[in-house]
Amino acid sequence: MNLTAIIGYLAAFGTTASFLPQAVKTIQTKDTSGISLPMYILFTLGTLLWLIYGIMEPSLPVAVANAITLIFAATILVYKIKYK
Amino acid sequence: MNLTAIIGYLAAFGTTASFLPQAVKTIQTKDTSGISLPMYILFTLGTLLWLIYGIMEPSLPVAVANAITLIFAATILVYKIKYK
Repeated sequence: MNLTAIIGYLAAFGTTASFLPQAVKTIQTKDTSGISLPMYILFTLGTLLWLIYGIMEPSLPVAVANAITLIFAATILVYKIKYK
Repeated sequence: MNLTAIIGYLAAFGTTASFLPQAVKTIQTKDTSGISLPMYILFTLGTLLWLIYGIMEPSLPVAVANAITLIFAATILVYKIKYK
């Protein structure tokens, strides 16, 4: 694996894993006042489209990374709607 | 452009543009209590790595989308550190 691919995998790990601490914090505190509803509507839709793109292309890394991110993003979106 | 590419571009637009309303809200309200610091550290680093990947690959869409996202994410991170 060359350096560019390694950087790509690290990038994918970072942007995917980053939503886990946000989801945990939101579930634990239910504090969603500072969280933007339009952000999580757009981001959840975008992640769903990335998942569909990954399945159609097909690109397993894109599909897997976005399936995981979709779970986190949708969870935060549901909490934002429920506890706004 | 085929359907898969169209879905890919819509996905890229959604996940990139989503951080704009969050950045605007955070700048206007300075309400960062519900925002996760580890999320924005990881996400900003991940986006920076995606930008480097896009330049090295080279992939102009990846580089451009992540350059824009990096500006939004870094702004939110700075506000989170300043107003936590």
